[in-house]
Amino acid sequence: MTPAPRDGLPPLVDHHCHGVLRHQPTAAEFAGLLTESDRPAAPGTSYLDSQLGFALRRWCPPVLGLPPHCPPADYLARRAELGPDETRRLLLTAAGIGTYLVDTGLPGPLTGPAGTAESGGGTGHEIVRLETLAEHTARQTADAEEFLDALARAVRDAAAHAVAFKTVAAYRHGLALAAHPPGRDVVHAAARGWLAAGEDRLADPVLLRHLVELAVATGLPLQIHTGFGDPDLRLHHADPALLTDFVRATADTGTPLVLLHCYPYHRQAAYLAAVYPHVYADVGLALGHTGARAAAVLAEFLELTPFGKLLFSTDAYGLPELYTVGSAVFRTALRTVLDDWTHHGAWSYEDAARVAALIAAENARRLYGLGDGP
Amino acid sequence: MTPAPRDGLPPLVDHHCHGVLRHQPTAAEFAGLLTESDRPAAPGTSYLDSQLGFALRRWCPPVLGLPPHCPPADYLARRAELGPDETRRLLLTAAGIGTYLVDTGLPGPLTGPAGTAESGGGTGHEIVRLETLAEHTARQTADAEEFLDALARAVRDAAAHAVAFKTVAAYRHGLALAAHPPGRDVVHAAARGWLAAGEDRLADPVLLRHLVELAVATGLPLQIHTGFGDPDLRLHHADPALLTDFVRATADTGTPLVLLHCYPYHRQAAYLAAVYPHVYADVGLALGHTGARAAAVLAEFLELTPFGKLLFSTDAYGLPELYTVGSAVFRTALRTVLDDWTHHGAWSYEDAARVAALIAAENARRLYGLGDGP
Amino acid sequence: MTPAPRDGLPPLVDHHCHGVLRHQPTAAEFAGLLTESDRPAAPGTSYLDSQLGFALRRWCPPVLGLPPHCPPADYLARRAELGPDETRRLLLTAAGIGTYLVDTGLPGPLTGPAGTAESGGGTGHEIVRLETLAEHTARQTADAEEFLDALARAVRDAAAHAVAFKTVAAYRHGLALAAHPPGRDVVHAAARGWLAAGEDRLADPVLLRHLVELAVATGLPLQIHTGFGDPDLRLHHADPALLTDFVRATADTGTPLVLLHCYPYHRQAAYLAAVYPHVYADVGLALGHTGARAAAVLAEFLELTPFGKLLFSTDAYGLPELYTVGSAVFRTALRTVLDDWTHHGAWSYEDAARVAALIAAENARRLYGLGDGP
Repeated sequence: MTPAPRDGLPPLVDHHCHGVLRHQPTAAEFAGLLTESDRPAAPGTSYLDSQLGFALRRWCPPVLGLPPHCPPADYLARRAELGPDETRRLLLTAAGIGTYLVDTGLPGPLTGPAGTAESGGGTGHEIVRLETLAEHTARQTADAEEFLDALARAVRDAAAHAVAFKTVAAYRHGLALAAHPPGRDVVHAAARGWLAAGEDRLADPVLLRHLVELAVATGLPLQIHTGFGDPDLRLHHADPALLTDFVRATADTGTPLVLLHCYPYHRQAAYLAAVYPHVYADVGLALGHTGARAAAVLAEFLELTPFGKLLFSTDAYGLPELYTVGSAVFRTALRTVLDDWTHHGAWSYEDAARVAALIAAENARRLYGLGDGP
Repeated sequence: MTPAPRDGLPPLVDHHCHGVLRHQPTAAEFAGLLTESDRPAAPGTSYLDSQLGFALRRWCPPVLGLPPHCPPADYLARRAELGPDETRRLLLTAAGIGTYLVDTGLPGPLTGPAGTAESGGGTGHEIVRLETLAEHTARQTADAEEFLDALARAVRDAAAHAVAFKTVAAYRHGLALAAHPPGRDVVHAAARGWLAAGEDRLADPVLLRHLVELAVATGLPLQIHTGFGDPDLRLHHADPALLTDFVRATADTGTPLVLLHCYPYHRQAAYLAAVYPHVYADVGLALGHTGARAAAVLAEFLELTPFGKLLFSTDAYGLPELYTVGSAVFRTALRTVLDDWTHHGAWSYEDAARVAALIAAENARRLYGLGDGP
Repeated sequence: MTPAPRDGLPPLVDHHCHGVLRHQPTAAEFAGLLTESDRPAAPGTSYLDSQLGFALRRWCPPVLGLPPHCPPADYLARRAELGPDETRRLLLTAAGIGTYLVDTGLPGPLTGPAGTAESGGGTGHEIVRLETLAEHTARQTADAEEFLDALARAVRDAAAHAVAFKTVAAYRHGLALAAHPPGRDVVHAAARGWLAAGEDRLADPVLLRHLVELAVATGLPLQIHTGFGDPDLRLHHADPALLTDFVRATADTGTPLVLLHCYPYHRQAAYLAAVYPHVYADVGLALGHTGARAAAVLAEFLELTPFGKLLFSTDAYGLPELYTVGSAVFRTALRTVLDDWTHHGAWSYEDAARVAALIAAENARRLYGLGDGP
């Protein structure tokens, strides 16, 4: 077993991640999980030739007993030799994550919160994805009345066991959500329209806003996808600044809003976190995908984000490697940034250590009510 | 008395700042003046845990005889011991600012241009905030006719003693100002509407544009708030690129436009300064609030902004510490950036010294007609 | 003759550039070619006081036998002494560019693809600018029918000898192009309207989108101006994210789209290149104009852009110096970035060398079908 890094950080709280494949992926499946694209790489190119691919080749081979940057084929051969369970155990243990908050809203044969956490020797909690919950509820109900009643119940029930909700409204409509929730009649009309259209995918802005309101009413933190992701979104519609009216309208609810990923609008997200007490920001996807540049991106996050408001996550999905990479890239980036600032006297060593622990775990523990740590 | 830094720079021209409190702030008031938020910090967090808070803790305690990064309570105790006048004198003197251009449009028991400058051993000049002037004028007049006549006079009169005007249209409407000024009838109708509504706050886009036009007609530099600020603005409506049509329409007037703060759209501001001769840019709020990251942010400003077009300001408000921090962070950032470029041979030492003096003081002296310096 | 740098890179492929002046420019003409502005510099300032100006003063004087950073007047005197032909030969040879893809759509007494390339000892190819082609065609035809027929023929004919098309729709309308091409009747009506208006400049969004469709249909790579440029554009209308619907609609055509320049929206461009196989990105104008900051800007490009998708160009125009500067700044930036990443172990030396060759030449060779190199 590869021990977690000894860098003075507490076990990390990964406040936004996903399950991993239970089976051994093919080479093509493996490469496909390294990109947000849903198509094969362009002719003559490879998805391994990216910051994420290079970061994986730096951090994962040593965990499986190979030299860093070894050829991808060697790595995949070694992985097959070990099998998916042992690979997962090694890679997750090396990540040094103590707590996993797992978004269970993605389909596929993935490990759940408990199974994911167990592989890494940690504890798992569930994040409920609102749109998946609504689509599931719609499939179980006969008409709009029944759907809306069941949906309200489903959100309340989920709040009893989940630690947070998540919305992907950025993908479905964009982040220019209405400040105020739609009235009852408007919601019912929208529900009738959606159900009548027979679409599986919920993209109606009225229903999305209604769903978000149901979640806000529970008081659980609401994670909001912002910034880049798969090609199902229009990037400029995912600028978190577009949330401003919604953020203002929810400022007095006491419900925290957590802006996920944010890149390349992370300075905009940091601004919202700086001026609205209930807004938090997350480094998420932005560090793993930028690899060698993660310190620079993290430093940009740390321009305006209050230090008690920034959260760590890997956004790992499918490959256990993404946990290893997310953790290693975050640790390296954080050390690089803080070493630089303390070295130049801009920050004291005591403050740097304190802020590192906040971002690595303590902010998430406070926000999600996780207690004092493992 | 703490002498100003001996770093080869001339006494700075702070071309955009505000008065400071005359009284001793409470701890809560002090922390509140370190954020652009108008609410208490989130539970478990502190506004001192930010780049601005850490920069203050680095630079200000030594000016008051304490070690850098000492606990905030020690600092506040020392501050109380010295009293507000001596604190202000020490902190402003340490800033090494020779000339203060003070926006007098904020309410509160603040020092004025002369009082602020005197504490720091410098000279003060006034910047007149247009919206404050209009709101004041409205309170003195009986109807729309009288208001508009008085407003035109007030702007002309202000131009006789002020060195610049400032608009906060970014807060009131956003920066998508109409290219061309509204016609007389439209302005009169808007004035009647605003006065009839009985609102104190001027947010009507027709009147804002009219006001800006009155200022442009005087030929004095017009400072325009752009980019981040307090939560009264929608960040994406404060992108200076939105000013493009207005900028084009004023290109032949000879009136300089000065884009304040700009962050996180400072590259957009730099572009406008690069292609329109009458546009200038300001590092303002963006350096103090990003603290340890100020060199990186300044470097981004210096990608496209012509070196004869970038201006120094602290945007200090309320706390004299913000002058000390604004000056120290700017000096450190400038030295860091220029040392890097000269060290690698990208710039000559002679050019670096010349550009440093331009940004620190000479560009502002030329732009505001301040003469050859103190 | 000044030999090209020996830095291990293959001869560069400059996949987007322009001709240079055949005559000796005056001092004013020289300064004017260093800015994207179309006006004289602001009072008391000089276009030489910019990152591009300083980069030119670093890299070009040594090529003409003068010390780096010598006074501009000395440089211009030496240039006049050598004459335009010898100056061009020296400066282009020093650039180490083996292949020039020249956009021939700009007016003026400029060298063509063959003449430009010959001065630098390389090979030239033509890129056809769509809007120039359409405007030229309109001047040769009598009515809308004839114009549209001739235009379709002209695009097909151009595809037979050009290596790529280029559109400046960003300048004419902005990048929010319709996803789908306009129908025949709409195009004819638009053509009649434009021809009737008697305007030389094609800015009609229907005709621009039609023109782009004709180009896409040829299968040749389509270069798209995005991001900053001369003041004829609104910067925020040139954000490549605005192309998303168009990009999606062309994803199955097999026609590559190449996003030029991109700054300050290069992270947005990188995202599109990451998730859409047919999208490529170009460092272009963004490196030369940011000079001492080019490594930082290149590093930002390399956060999300797949390494098989990034292309080198100088966007040189008018002055042969811009080839020298574009090449030198790119080489320096690339070495700086890769040295940093290999030094810290983030990348292997083998990968760094491989990626450097991809960006410098191989990606362009593959994309434009240029064969295996000179």
